[in-house]
Amino acid sequence: MTGTDTEAVEAANAELYAAFEASDLDRMRRVWIDDDTASCVHPGWRVLHGTSRIMRSWAVIFANTPYIQFFLTDTDVTVLGDVAVVRCVEGVLTSLDDAEGDASIAATNVFLRRPDGWRLWLHHGSPVVQRAESDGLG
Amino acid sequence: MTGTDTEAVEAANAELYAAFEASDLDRMRRVWIDDDTASCVHPGWRVLHGTSRIMRSWAVIFANTPYIQFFLTDTDVTVLGDVAVVRCVEGVLTSLDDAEGDASIAATNVFLRRPDGWRLWLHHGSPVVQRAESDGLG
Repeated sequence: MTGTDTEAVEAANAELYAAFEASDLDRMRRVWIDDDTASCVHPGWRVLHGTSRIMRSWAVIFANTPYIQFFLTDTDVTVLGDVAVVRCVEGVLTSLDDAEGDASIAATNVFLRRPDGWRLWLHHGSPVVQRAESDGLG
Repeated sequence: MTGTDTEAVEAANAELYAAFEASDLDRMRRVWIDDDTASCVHPGWRVLHGTSRIMRSWAVIFANTPYIQFFLTDTDVTVLGDVAVVRCVEGVLTSLDDAEGDASIAATNVFLRRPDGWRLWLHHGSPVVQRAESDGLG
């Protein structure tokens, strides 16, 4: 667990959101592992398995997202051998289907170490509808 | 990656849901690692960090859930060294706040190998609001 690993994972994680902001499918494809065991849960969606289906979902999302910008907070990187888990909160500023707004998404991203670098193997994003002040958990 | 590992992780994952169904805080505590880096996202909630805060959230949930039953489907276990990732779909039959209903939750559970067995380190559940037939992704 070296600083270099953590920095490389942070960069791979940042590239996921940069590719989304740019609506760039080629960049997004390079973020992901090419593997039938990859999985992706977009907020409110069922789980999608396999890189090809996941990439089709990004194509649909990009086509329906004229503008999106992310502000990541609480980013936490844990490297466990050849597995890296990133937890972060996606602050989202978007114009989706003509309805502008902002949202907060809780994200879990799991990267696997490959000869050519860290590749995204699992993305799970979920909408945060509960206010932090209201759960009484500090 | 032995059959024994996979079976042990499956059993640890099943115990998470059995403890929830039983509303048994002691059982739930034994499912989890005791660690400030543990995290939990209940459906619609912000991320909670640290086992003590996570256990307080289970106490709140148990107090507000008179009845809950899980039907797990699409359970997929991947063992990567001392890390195990379980993906599953939680079919939920519940009576919550007097409103009965059922729901589908996409879940990601990450277990870490400890001397005394596999312990839950990360739980992320998110409500599935989109119908599989409607996304056109096959």
